[in-house]
Amino acid sequence: MTQTSQFEENIITTEQVAQHNTRESCWIIVHGKVYDVTEFLPEHPGGSRIILKYAGKDATAEYDPIHPPDAITENLPPSKHLGVVDPASVEEKVTEMTEEEKQVAQRHQSKPPLSECLSLHDIETVARYVMADKAWMYYSSGADDEMTMRENHNAYHRIWFRPRILRDVTEVKFDTKILGHSTQMPLYITATALGKLGHPDGELNLTRSAAKNGIIQMIPTLASCSFDDIRGAATPDQVQFLQLYVNKNREVTERIVRRAEKSGIKGLFVTVDAPQLGRREKDMRMKFDDVGSKEQAESGENVDRSQGAARAISSFIDPSLNWNDLKWIFSITKMPIILKGVQCWQDAVMAAKSGCAGVVLSNHGGRQLDFAPSGIEILPEVMAALKHANVDSSSFEVYVDGGVRRASDILKAVALGAKAVGIGRPFIYAYSAYGEAGVNRAMDILRDEFEMCMRLLGARSLDEVTPEMVNAANLTNVDIPRDYLFHSNYERLNGLHGKIDVTRGSKL
Amino acid sequence: MTQTSQFEENIITTEQVAQHNTRESCWIIVHGKVYDVTEFLPEHPGGSRIILKYAGKDATAEYDPIHPPDAITENLPPSKHLGVVDPASVEEKVTEMTEEEKQVAQRHQSKPPLSECLSLHDIETVARYVMADKAWMYYSSGADDEMTMRENHNAYHRIWFRPRILRDVTEVKFDTKILGHSTQMPLYITATALGKLGHPDGELNLTRSAAKNGIIQMIPTLASCSFDDIRGAATPDQVQFLQLYVNKNREVTERIVRRAEKSGIKGLFVTVDAPQLGRREKDMRMKFDDVGSKEQAESGENVDRSQGAARAISSFIDPSLNWNDLKWIFSITKMPIILKGVQCWQDAVMAAKSGCAGVVLSNHGGRQLDFAPSGIEILPEVMAALKHANVDSSSFEVYVDGGVRRASDILKAVALGAKAVGIGRPFIYAYSAYGEAGVNRAMDILRDEFEMCMRLLGARSLDEVTPEMVNAANLTNVDIPRDYLFHSNYERLNGLHGKIDVTRGSKL
Amino acid sequence: MTQTSQFEENIITTEQVAQHNTRESCWIIVHGKVYDVTEFLPEHPGGSRIILKYAGKDATAEYDPIHPPDAITENLPPSKHLGVVDPASVEEKVTEMTEEEKQVAQRHQSKPPLSECLSLHDIETVARYVMADKAWMYYSSGADDEMTMRENHNAYHRIWFRPRILRDVTEVKFDTKILGHSTQMPLYITATALGKLGHPDGELNLTRSAAKNGIIQMIPTLASCSFDDIRGAATPDQVQFLQLYVNKNREVTERIVRRAEKSGIKGLFVTVDAPQLGRREKDMRMKFDDVGSKEQAESGENVDRSQGAARAISSFIDPSLNWNDLKWIFSITKMPIILKGVQCWQDAVMAAKSGCAGVVLSNHGGRQLDFAPSGIEILPEVMAALKHANVDSSSFEVYVDGGVRRASDILKAVALGAKAVGIGRPFIYAYSAYGEAGVNRAMDILRDEFEMCMRLLGARSLDEVTPEMVNAANLTNVDIPRDYLFHSNYERLNGLHGKIDVTRGSKL
Amino acid sequence: MTQTSQFEENIITTEQVAQHNTRESCWIIVHGKVYDVTEFLPEHPGGSRIILKYAGKDATAEYDPIHPPDAITENLPPSKHLGVVDPASVEEKVTEMTEEEKQVAQRHQSKPPLSECLSLHDIETVARYVMADKAWMYYSSGADDEMTMRENHNAYHRIWFRPRILRDVTEVKFDTKILGHSTQMPLYITATALGKLGHPDGELNLTRSAAKNGIIQMIPTLASCSFDDIRGAATPDQVQFLQLYVNKNREVTERIVRRAEKSGIKGLFVTVDAPQLGRREKDMRMKFDDVGSKEQAESGENVDRSQGAARAISSFIDPSLNWNDLKWIFSITKMPIILKGVQCWQDAVMAAKSGCAGVVLSNHGGRQLDFAPSGIEILPEVMAALKHANVDSSSFEVYVDGGVRRASDILKAVALGAKAVGIGRPFIYAYSAYGEAGVNRAMDILRDEFEMCMRLLGARSLDEVTPEMVNAANLTNVDIPRDYLFHSNYERLNGLHGKIDVTRGSKL
Repeated sequence: MTQTSQFEENIITTEQVAQHNTRESCWIIVHGKVYDVTEFLPEHPGGSRIILKYAGKDATAEYDPIHPPDAITENLPPSKHLGVVDPASVEEKVTEMTEEEKQVAQRHQSKPPLSECLSLHDIETVARYVMADKAWMYYSSGADDEMTMRENHNAYHRIWFRPRILRDVTEVKFDTKILGHSTQMPLYITATALGKLGHPDGELNLTRSAAKNGIIQMIPTLASCSFDDIRGAATPDQVQFLQLYVNKNREVTERIVRRAEKSGIKGLFVTVDAPQLGRREKDMRMKFDDVGSKEQAESGENVDRSQGAARAISSFIDPSLNWNDLKWIFSITKMPIILKGVQCWQDAVMAAKSGCAGVVLSNHGGRQLDFAPSGIEILPEVMAALKHANVDSSSFEVYVDGGVRRASDILKAVALGAKAVGIGRPFIYAYSAYGEAGVNRAMDILRDEFEMCMRLLGARSLDEVTPEMVNAANLTNVDIPRDYLFHSNYERLNGLHGKIDVTRGSKL
Repeated sequence: MTQTSQFEENIITTEQVAQHNTRESCWIIVHGKVYDVTEFLPEHPGGSRIILKYAGKDATAEYDPIHPPDAITENLPPSKHLGVVDPASVEEKVTEMTEEEKQVAQRHQSKPPLSECLSLHDIETVARYVMADKAWMYYSSGADDEMTMRENHNAYHRIWFRPRILRDVTEVKFDTKILGHSTQMPLYITATALGKLGHPDGELNLTRSAAKNGIIQMIPTLASCSFDDIRGAATPDQVQFLQLYVNKNREVTERIVRRAEKSGIKGLFVTVDAPQLGRREKDMRMKFDDVGSKEQAESGENVDRSQGAARAISSFIDPSLNWNDLKWIFSITKMPIILKGVQCWQDAVMAAKSGCAGVVLSNHGGRQLDFAPSGIEILPEVMAALKHANVDSSSFEVYVDGGVRRASDILKAVALGAKAVGIGRPFIYAYSAYGEAGVNRAMDILRDEFEMCMRLLGARSLDEVTPEMVNAANLTNVDIPRDYLFHSNYERLNGLHGKIDVTRGSKL
Repeated sequence: MTQTSQFEENIITTEQVAQHNTRESCWIIVHGKVYDVTEFLPEHPGGSRIILKYAGKDATAEYDPIHPPDAITENLPPSKHLGVVDPASVEEKVTEMTEEEKQVAQRHQSKPPLSECLSLHDIETVARYVMADKAWMYYSSGADDEMTMRENHNAYHRIWFRPRILRDVTEVKFDTKILGHSTQMPLYITATALGKLGHPDGELNLTRSAAKNGIIQMIPTLASCSFDDIRGAATPDQVQFLQLYVNKNREVTERIVRRAEKSGIKGLFVTVDAPQLGRREKDMRMKFDDVGSKEQAESGENVDRSQGAARAISSFIDPSLNWNDLKWIFSITKMPIILKGVQCWQDAVMAAKSGCAGVVLSNHGGRQLDFAPSGIEILPEVMAALKHANVDSSSFEVYVDGGVRRASDILKAVALGAKAVGIGRPFIYAYSAYGEAGVNRAMDILRDEFEMCMRLLGARSLDEVTPEMVNAANLTNVDIPRDYLFHSNYERLNGLHGKIDVTRGSKL
Repeated sequence: MTQTSQFEENIITTEQVAQHNTRESCWIIVHGKVYDVTEFLPEHPGGSRIILKYAGKDATAEYDPIHPPDAITENLPPSKHLGVVDPASVEEKVTEMTEEEKQVAQRHQSKPPLSECLSLHDIETVARYVMADKAWMYYSSGADDEMTMRENHNAYHRIWFRPRILRDVTEVKFDTKILGHSTQMPLYITATALGKLGHPDGELNLTRSAAKNGIIQMIPTLASCSFDDIRGAATPDQVQFLQLYVNKNREVTERIVRRAEKSGIKGLFVTVDAPQLGRREKDMRMKFDDVGSKEQAESGENVDRSQGAARAISSFIDPSLNWNDLKWIFSITKMPIILKGVQCWQDAVMAAKSGCAGVVLSNHGGRQLDFAPSGIEILPEVMAALKHANVDSSSFEVYVDGGVRRASDILKAVALGAKAVGIGRPFIYAYSAYGEAGVNRAMDILRDEFEMCMRLLGARSLDEVTPEMVNAANLTNVDIPRDYLFHSNYERLNGLHGKIDVTRGSKL
């Protein structure tokens, strides 16, 4: 910030900028400031071509939804921050909608009223319908063959209830505490990146709905909105956590952590399952559709093509992060530290022994290592191992995320020992489809499901949701999702069926 | 009844009624009587809009199939029972059929003759074909993702027979006793609500067929026909049971129970799996189609939209019902008490210890808590637990319901220890498609299947249908039904298949 | 036979016959003889209507393929055998082909050449293509939901090989002995009924091919060709077995058994899984298509509609047959007795103890009790039980039938202890599609598969095909076939997918 | 070679050749030499017809891709090597493309750019799209019902990871050694036949890419390119192995082995799972499409039709090969001997005891015995048995091939004890679609996947990829692939669904 301020007085006209529109000299405008990105072109994780498209022009609209607000200032040396645009030189451009934007708008017109959404699945259906392709693909994609992503959801289906009858369930409650902070339901809004892809208000939709519904939000490192904006949108007493990607540059991380603690953040969730971001082919494929792979191929440019939106924004993440670094993190903050992305009981025990306040059993929504187990599948063995290691459950909490769509899913996790679950995609889908009202509706639906499920289970409070209330005997019998890529290449055996019409029309 | 009688002499013309056709003053006619429902509008579980549609008019046709006959008198204070309609003022209205009614009638014309129905599945197929949407959806829907509803049927497929050969099976019998009362087959007609949705005679179709076939009928609390009509349709010696939802107002319940016992009811099946009715999305969705959700949304009316036909009629059920209340029930009747909706062995043992005459292992046809286990799946562990608890099987009977479609299903349940099974939907489908003749046909089919199965099993009577005759080793390996909502939102991985036509027409 | 001879001289003209064309007086001609079937009409298992269609006419063409040749003489008292038709009165009728017959002929024209059939599946594909509906449905149908029929095939897929390498497999042999008689492959042609439905030469196709290929044929009781014709078609040394349905009239059975033994039959396979024939809905449904159920329904005729071709011809089977009757059978023949249709190890042991020469683990091709286990599934426990009971495997043989389509299936059965397997449908399909040449081709394919499989397994003779060569650990984990009737009635949950087109054409 | 040289001077004109164009006298030209194949016609494994098509003509183009270069000289006695074609007599023929060749070319034009291929599946998709039918079917086909072929891939899905977190994974390496020779990834290019079917450069594409990527290639006996060409294309230090089919004529084999050793081949992989080549129906079926089975059928020619491309070229393989022959092989070479095609732990132990340097757990890509287990499935029991037999893992290596498509598959094999895996089809698909660049791209993709997977697993080198990192508890629970031939013949039960439209259009 201070670095760029010295250039603030430097006034540049749009005409001047327009002259630097080549690979040899490439200036762009972002948020009214002018940057020289010529030397940065080959380093841009998303390839140089996408920048060159805006050489000499204002790139803000393209830049905004897929970069953290301070990405450009963090990545460019101060010397490349050239100055501010002369407002007088800016032509009042009538921003015309693209064809896709028009279609998105049209679909928003014809979507069903929010009240017709009866489940989180319904809301997701509408999101899939209205969202722009790039946004939908970025949010909905998983790693490789998406085995883990689908298993995350499927695993819940292998847990069945053992409901109890004849208990007075007039009043049922399902509030609890997470790290000592109250929540109206045993869930929190987990961190997800690039929130503005789905809605111009991005993560603020979540902040506002979280306040209204007594739910805790975890603020993502890769938010589209700035940390300050998100904190600013919170009510005075609203509890928020922070998700942290540790930067190769530890000073940056320290700055982030201290700022968070100072601003009142109540817990720090350090992501440990993403030393490198996973291959998400749906997301990666959008890139080709976008920038015209053929042309690019012909231009001879040698970009790293194994990149979708996610990877493009994550090159700062430090793959060297290890258990020793935890000590350093403990040294710079008093916030409770939770490891997000634990995938086996051994690491859960190590986290407890290392002084963490908890772990999230998570595989990053199936977006990292394909064939990583679902959090819910390993929950029973993690709980058993923690007990065996004499970890005090009152000072070490276990959360699970991934695949949750119903209150019944959450109650299964609670029955097996989870303090709460994290929910990510469903809430982004909700605001992508209906803005903040969509998130509120999702909360309403979950609350209604909780009430019903608690009554039908025969549990008046979460204390009564015990391991005996579920049958998890089949939990580890993973039902493998279909490998679509393999199956569609498999040439189906036809025998003579391909040659004669055995059905003879409708005769048989 | 006595409460309304004082108003009987008050004669009101249809013209007078017609003037009260607004939200501010809303009168309706039901069965020739005039009610002021203005104050009741906001309380109506189905929303005010559906009532306002009939403001100032006769609402009988809409009211009848989805309300117990005395619902309106029970819910409105006597002061709102305004009087009787002046018959002279009633215009002879030619009730024109709606478009849907015409289509239903047409489909009834073109349905296959009853004799072509070879299985209960066939009858259900015809029902699905002829029934009005609302009726089909109400009967066929299950809770949430309908996992439990489908599992109820599927579970039977995980039990296989071990047939014995070379036994003289010239004569095979499959009659038995339920609570000491004879039945020609080890089954009873279980209680289901809103019988008139499928056929104008509603539950009477079942009463009549039960008499002819020597089968016991359980009368539902939420019948469309009145209790007296159903009892009246029974033959003098016909055995009937009563299903009971316990009312928040215990006096109402006591009145119902005493009336039942007095009228000769032989057993009281207390529903314990429904302190709140489940979310059945197919049913809930019909509501939107019906009343025009868009308009309603715009009207700003704040109805609870999480309601289908089922929930709309069940707000009286007492969620506080608990084991202590059982003592009270025992105190008001000498009828044997059976708990309907037991879902784990612990509660079955408690029921036996509490003095009940039996339990129905049931999850309410998959209409309550999704992921509740099927009755047949838990039957073996329930039988083992009862034996372990020294419960005398001659004085405590275990029944199962849900998912039964074949006599072979029933024989599997009997082999594993059930005294009989309850069958609900198949018989309603039968009369919805073909009236009483349909129910008789269903009984014929089952009888024919029983005879064949007994012979092929090598069992001459139900005593010979023993646990050794089935292989239930795979019973607990639940095969998860497909989660359609999740799968249809999942964006299938396509790779390059979406881009090139690998099949090249019919070449490969 | 002797009974009808006294009427042989009675000459009747077709004109005379034609006058008896009503329900009150109904004469028909079969094979040039005139019968009065008036009193038999209500007893006809297939219903009276189908006979009335031929009242006063020649019914031979309809009668032939679905009745054993002597059915009419066995069922009608001699007094109803009226005489022989006056040949002079018979008009030379140009038998015009029906529309269906024309289509069958056309399909035979367009079927692929036999040499293109590479597997038994291919041959079945052609059969399904060319056969008349009634024939296809009769052969291909199974009981109820056809779970057992499909499981019969599927069960083989749960057995995998453990092939051995580096054995000299230049010469491989797979001949063996069945009841001491040589066979070129470890299989026999099992009995199936109504052979002429598929081909005018019926079972003779099998007899001739069996001779050429060194395979043993089991002659069915319900053959379309007469026993004498089938024996007559055999070569002098050709070994044949007889399948036996025991008649309620034991004299008939005794006559059949003695005739068989006298004619050189080498083994008697007593069917024990069919005290009553099963419900095969595909077959039953054909009846309605055939005789016009609507008209019949209107005629008020009260036929037993639970009958297809199979049941119509089987009413003579004695359901009282039991272990005691075995002694009587032993007393009337010296042929080895094998029980066909054993479905549990207990009965296999009893058969051995009773002096039988073997058992066929069979569920009648899935045509009797649905959910009976497949023979191959119970083979291991049967072999273990026989060993435990000290049954001498050299004097008691175990066969399996049902679901076999590949030599690899057969080798799995052999590895697990079966002496041979029975194959039925595939060979009927073979001659239905291509006559005797089809059966020969099927034999060639199996032989080719045997040679390859033996080599690749590393076994030079069947002695080397041992239990260690297969992995049957998953054999009892039955993979339930789909219940199509249930699933097609299930109303798939759609959520909002039914309302909006989430795919937006080809965009995603 | 020496045998033909004596005829080299014999000059023959194309006119002379053209006169020998009948079954009675049939000459053909291959690579400029003239052969009299009249007496060979009935012996040709592919049938005489295909040769007669080229009687009197140049057959080189047809001959090339499906015969090893020296097949004709090896099979014809020297007396039939007539001489060389007079170059002067050869008309400059404008080789016109066939219709199929044109379509192949067109599809190559319209295929996606290589950079869009994000996985090996994508590359296979393009191969399936561009390849000629015969080539695609030859490469992609498996034995019988292709159960084993599909299981090879599916088995990997039953192994899930147990990733570790918080390890410094800045640098990850996945190089290793195979038989002491370095490889950049734990994989080698395994031998596959008929490489020119996919691309004119055939196996040379693999040689060149292997050199560039530091990967070892195994040269196939049945290569389309000659051994010398393939060796010649290698860089000086490039390590290559040789796959060996042992010939009935041991002198031929000895010659091959000595030549290989002399030329610097580093390992000899003796194929032991193919004493006879399997039945691959897709491949076999192409033959009929090719030569017009109808005509052939009518010609009365009695060819062995149970032959596809594979079997046609493999008649020389010796089915007598056995453990004793190993001694002889050890006697003629010092190269390490590896058995390729071991399918049970017993044979793996025997191989170790016999002095082999390793085994490949393989079922020949699912192209030999259907229902042979996948290599990866038996890997754990093989490793356990070797350990139990005290086999020194440093001197005996275990490889696995079949079904590999992702680096994650390979890491699973490595975790369970494999030294490396063999990859065949994916690389042929790669060059069939894109030539050598395709293979390079496949290598790039795998390398990228390795890097990511290692990081996300928390393993810095292959040493850290241990059995504890995978969960193979479900590995032996084989999920049976669908038997398409059986299922398409199965007549689906429809009940009354075939008769009425229960869906009523879009109403429900």
